[in-house]
Amino acid sequence: MIISVIGAGTCDKEIYNIAEEVGRLIAQKSATLITGGLGGVMEAASKGAKAAGGDTVGILPGFSKEEANPFINIPITTGLSHARNIIVVRSADAVIAIAGEHGTLSEIALALKLGKPVIGIRTWNIDGVVKVNSPEEAVQKAFNLANKL
Amino acid sequence: MIISVIGAGTCDKEIYNIAEEVGRLIAQKSATLITGGLGGVMEAASKGAKAAGGDTVGILPGFSKEEANPFINIPITTGLSHARNIIVVRSADAVIAIAGEHGTLSEIALALKLGKPVIGIRTWNIDGVVKVNSPEEAVQKAFNLANKL
Amino acid sequence: MIISVIGAGTCDKEIYNIAEEVGRLIAQKSATLITGGLGGVMEAASKGAKAAGGDTVGILPGFSKEEANPFINIPITTGLSHARNIIVVRSADAVIAIAGEHGTLSEIALALKLGKPVIGIRTWNIDGVVKVNSPEEAVQKAFNLANKL
Amino acid sequence: MIISVIGAGTCDKEIYNIAEEVGRLIAQKSATLITGGLGGVMEAASKGAKAAGGDTVGILPGFSKEEANPFINIPITTGLSHARNIIVVRSADAVIAIAGEHGTLSEIALALKLGKPVIGIRTWNIDGVVKVNSPEEAVQKAFNLANKL
Repeated sequence: MIISVIGAGTCDKEIYNIAEEVGRLIAQKSATLITGGLGGVMEAASKGAKAAGGDTVGILPGFSKEEANPFINIPITTGLSHARNIIVVRSADAVIAIAGEHGTLSEIALALKLGKPVIGIRTWNIDGVVKVNSPEEAVQKAFNLANKL
Repeated sequence: MIISVIGAGTCDKEIYNIAEEVGRLIAQKSATLITGGLGGVMEAASKGAKAAGGDTVGILPGFSKEEANPFINIPITTGLSHARNIIVVRSADAVIAIAGEHGTLSEIALALKLGKPVIGIRTWNIDGVVKVNSPEEAVQKAFNLANKL
Repeated sequence: MIISVIGAGTCDKEIYNIAEEVGRLIAQKSATLITGGLGGVMEAASKGAKAAGGDTVGILPGFSKEEANPFINIPITTGLSHARNIIVVRSADAVIAIAGEHGTLSEIALALKLGKPVIGIRTWNIDGVVKVNSPEEAVQKAFNLANKL
Repeated sequence: MIISVIGAGTCDKEIYNIAEEVGRLIAQKSATLITGGLGGVMEAASKGAKAAGGDTVGILPGFSKEEANPFINIPITTGLSHARNIIVVRSADAVIAIAGEHGTLSEIALALKLGKPVIGIRTWNIDGVVKVNSPEEAVQKAFNLANKL
């Protein structure tokens, strides 16, 4: 099972804590975590997953694995800038969106276009996104919906 | 000047007519039109622009220029599937969104992320999109905002 | 008909002159020229084609159309870095390689992989490349082989 | 450390055995293996690495992780077709090329363009490729050269 967590590269402490818990729960269920590999929500989810012993993949936009946050153990260096967003969502069995700005919105839209389950916590209000209120609910829904595909 | 028109690959007659008129006005102002090269809004805008003597570029998702609509005179065959969306918006001085579904939403989000002016007619209601009601207004706004960059 | 000309971003005067003549001949036959849009061979071919009244498309690796050489009239800004090479060759009915280094070699290899005709002047000696000695011969062969596809 | 192994999607038994041994040695040295995720050399290297307990990443060209060979434990689904080649080499600290055809040649060229160490076993004879004769020598050279970067 592969779960992608998407969200902005900077975030406040509350969102960081939510993302970290989401990452931890994903790893505890033995799924691989994919993110865009940078800071903010991507870092928090990776931190949580790594602490729980999980694999953390970062699909990086730039030219060097040095741009990955410190909790990525498998950095994939694409050099594709924002075009790497499609890889983040296409590789996932389900996508969890946490807060986020326009980059996250583009990923939500692409995920829905591809027919992937998209679970949202405090994120864009787009038809098709399954809204939840807690990390536990987010990860549970992600697994349930991914298993139905 | 390069204006990209984005919208769904299928659309009703009313939206088709709007897109065709937008394409015509873009070409009359001697701008190059870029679209994703397929049907619906992309075809309509290309049809209008070509009829007015303009260049019509199609940034195609697939593997063959045969997939371009008949009004594309410069087919660019990317083989990148939805990752080609970023090229459509990155190449533009301004983007005009007409109706559209999730693919269009991903392009609107990417365009806003890149700081491009985005003009919208009957499309997603996203902060940052400049809403207009007519083809004339859309093209006028697109040129005005592009010139300010 | 679309012909792509590939070659290094810097070149000596002799290679520049060859590429310029190749571009001129492509435009005289009313084909569209595609290049990677930068300097050297890409610039020379575009200069020749533009002088002959042809369309010159540049598939740019970076983030701004400002990086295009002055003879590109249709800049496509990909932001994909070297991944844009595949677009240059995939969009072509035939590819003409002039001199070139490792970037050109990657494009020759991709073009052969895709089954595109590849004509070479003073370039890499790879099985499958049709070697020629003059711009006239290069363009003639490119059109002949493209028409057989 | 990340080592990418490149080579054709089909190969004979002798090449398969070489690639499998290369994969095994990479994993024994605790490096992550990246390949294009398909058959032939990609499968063999992944098989060897997985048997030795290593992480095996497959950068897939298509739209589904189902296309990955059975020895990939981290499938990355790009949907980018041959444009995914650049990701395979850009993500690597060193690249080992085993036999291979035009796709492999494009990856060798891109790796050299990016300044990555490229070690070759029975592969294209291109200046810049470090030729070796055995899996042991290939992996040793790859680690030595990667560590010098």
